[in-house]
Amino acid sequence: MPNQERPRFLVVGGGLVGSMVAALLGREGFPVELIDRRGDPRTGQIEAGRSINLAISARGLNGLAALNANDQLLALGVPLYRRAIHARHSAGGGVAYQAYGDGRQAIYSFSRGELNRALVGAAGATPNVGLSFGRRCVDVDLEAGTVAHVDAGTGADRRTSRGVIIGADGAFSAVRSGLQKRLYQEYSQSFLEHGYKELYVPARPDGSPALEMNAMHIWPRGRFMMMAMANWDHSFTVTLYLPRTGENGFDRLTTPGDVQGFFEREFSDAVPLMPSLIEDFFANPTGAMVTVRTYPWQVGGRAVLIGDAAHAIVPFYGQGVNCGFEDVLELVDQIKANPGDLTLAFDRYQQIRKPNAEAIADLALMNFHEMRDQVASPLFLWKKRLEHLLALALPGWYRPLYPMIAFSLIPYAEARARAAQQAATLRRIGWSIGALITVSIAWLLLSR
Amino acid sequence: MPNQERPRFLVVGGGLVGSMVAALLGREGFPVELIDRRGDPRTGQIEAGRSINLAISARGLNGLAALNANDQLLALGVPLYRRAIHARHSAGGGVAYQAYGDGRQAIYSFSRGELNRALVGAAGATPNVGLSFGRRCVDVDLEAGTVAHVDAGTGADRRTSRGVIIGADGAFSAVRSGLQKRLYQEYSQSFLEHGYKELYVPARPDGSPALEMNAMHIWPRGRFMMMAMANWDHSFTVTLYLPRTGENGFDRLTTPGDVQGFFEREFSDAVPLMPSLIEDFFANPTGAMVTVRTYPWQVGGRAVLIGDAAHAIVPFYGQGVNCGFEDVLELVDQIKANPGDLTLAFDRYQQIRKPNAEAIADLALMNFHEMRDQVASPLFLWKKRLEHLLALALPGWYRPLYPMIAFSLIPYAEARARAAQQAATLRRIGWSIGALITVSIAWLLLSR
Repeated sequence: MPNQERPRFLVVGGGLVGSMVAALLGREGFPVELIDRRGDPRTGQIEAGRSINLAISARGLNGLAALNANDQLLALGVPLYRRAIHARHSAGGGVAYQAYGDGRQAIYSFSRGELNRALVGAAGATPNVGLSFGRRCVDVDLEAGTVAHVDAGTGADRRTSRGVIIGADGAFSAVRSGLQKRLYQEYSQSFLEHGYKELYVPARPDGSPALEMNAMHIWPRGRFMMMAMANWDHSFTVTLYLPRTGENGFDRLTTPGDVQGFFEREFSDAVPLMPSLIEDFFANPTGAMVTVRTYPWQVGGRAVLIGDAAHAIVPFYGQGVNCGFEDVLELVDQIKANPGDLTLAFDRYQQIRKPNAEAIADLALMNFHEMRDQVASPLFLWKKRLEHLLALALPGWYRPLYPMIAFSLIPYAEARARAAQQAATLRRIGWSIGALITVSIAWLLLSR
Repeated sequence: MPNQERPRFLVVGGGLVGSMVAALLGREGFPVELIDRRGDPRTGQIEAGRSINLAISARGLNGLAALNANDQLLALGVPLYRRAIHARHSAGGGVAYQAYGDGRQAIYSFSRGELNRALVGAAGATPNVGLSFGRRCVDVDLEAGTVAHVDAGTGADRRTSRGVIIGADGAFSAVRSGLQKRLYQEYSQSFLEHGYKELYVPARPDGSPALEMNAMHIWPRGRFMMMAMANWDHSFTVTLYLPRTGENGFDRLTTPGDVQGFFEREFSDAVPLMPSLIEDFFANPTGAMVTVRTYPWQVGGRAVLIGDAAHAIVPFYGQGVNCGFEDVLELVDQIKANPGDLTLAFDRYQQIRKPNAEAIADLALMNFHEMRDQVASPLFLWKKRLEHLLALALPGWYRPLYPMIAFSLIPYAEARARAAQQAATLRRIGWSIGALITVSIAWLLLSR
């Protein structure tokens, strides 16, 4: 059932993914309306205190390049070339470094709010795009292709918008909950037992950064960890990851004394850099991290999910937005490639993106364990060195997983499959060498 | 936070589980209100054409025994002592038998509608229990402990009931969707790629049954299958399981000619027994089968899930209602054992029942593959014979899984763990025997 030639799109959610898809569809000449619950980031204060800084890598840069806004936006990002691993004071308190790639390859630390402001600006500057902020979606009718929304502050002024619905409304998507009520909709949501809290390291009084700017700072502590990523103004956005309950859990840190004691024991080198620690800890909310998997992502060419709304993932591979931008490019490409048939366009889009979203969701969960537990272990460091050596020795054949994810555009599912294949081959080679050594020793012993 | 001494319960859903929990709580002296969307089964026509017959086994009988209504209810059930496997006409068309247990052990085939009518009767006859039928739940407020409901026919006459909410409203539970909106609620729903359709084998004109009464009839066909279970009136409720789409799928059977041809090819011995085949096929809906997993099952002593609402499973182990009745007994026991503290009672209930619900959900999915693919294979028959021999040879140690599930009250999770342990031990013994034989042959060859 082909749709009308020039459909009108209704984007729900004006975050990074929603504003980018609105801008790109608008440039293709489609009329687009975007509605978002929050205030307009171009005029108001950016919502703070609950975000995790973004790490934009190759895929994200590729998305920004599609906006032709690369240079201007990149100025907001701080390149991170390596991890800086902060040991416990009781373990010497030193800092060890691990390059992410070949030393020149970098991921880029962005303030979510600032990047969002820039992307909303790009969408708003596009002729066919209308933006409505401060509007909360209260009802989605997937059959009729309408969304009812109200003033987010007062709950009054109910209006209905009509169009092909693009659900870009994040991990707790209202559009997705409409899909979820349909028969045969596969759906799962699973929360990490850890929560997170945003904290802050300001620039020094003389304006210089308090930590090295061009590194991702990590304090791995086994069952929990802390991270810090630079902002362009030389401040750092810090994220503390703790179990929600139990030993070293958020529920055990209820007084300023608890927090101060915990930080001095676990993150003593960071304490002098965080003058507003206690204040921030109790003012900022504890965030939840959820993995959401669902399928299909579309309803008959009338509605489609994108970004976190389609596949919320945990933040530990730093790929959430990168994956979302890949979704945007694929969706726009398929809409252009299948004129007059959105059902087919959305179907191709979901078939291409779903396996990749699954792969990065799994990898992000795996990386949580790696960053928390293993990143500081000698075995992990040796494994990374071995990977590096193999990549140098067998450049055509061996590529470590992390650079494939962060520094290439190889689809996530393909990168994961390739890494698994490489690992299996290495195991076989290892076994063969072991067998060869055993046979040689046996031969030597017997031939004496 | 202990609840009031004598709480009032509000049971949403008057199916088998809901009516049983209402009856048992009423007998304990708690005031109970039960609301159900459907008409009163004691007075009206039983909803037909979309049910799968029930197989009540040891756990279900244990539940019925708690109602002291065993004898009267058991008269409605037909004992099934064995499987009757119907081969394809092209494979000889014979019938092979497999005993479920020791030959005397049986599962009981019940008409869902008739058993439901009996249980609603038991609930209605209990002094403290009020029943409201034809009332559709439209809003659940888990904080306030209220449920808004309307006339299921007209949608009018909105009323609000208050009480400790027991969500017994099945696989697509409205109470559960209230829980699911809460942060940190684990949730997944996954649909089988197969659908089902109810069909019918009437008694012969002389009143005799057209198939053997005391067997579960199965027509396994690899990617699909058909089953038939007796009713006390000598008719059989037939369930056809096909892929929803594709080869041998429901979507390929669109004309009477398609259906007639398909049945004559695949189930030729059954065709003469089904005079209303074509009519039933097109009149009865195609049902969906879903596995739902969620946790927690309670909200602060104010609401709790039970039965399919807590853990919808596919029907292939015949344990859905059996598991639901175990939930009922555990819930009522915990409420009695923790007077004045429903939060604790519900917490103990969910901690005990959740692992068992997970185990039977997994086993039911596994059994789908066994029944469909393997039940007719010689290897499967040999495996069953070996299991039988082992059980005879090692009665204290070896118990096959099926009888532990169907004929014992061993918790599902424990039965599954025990079966896995037995299988691992048998594999080790097998390997040891193999190694022994190899060494013996080598020794014989070398010593010649």
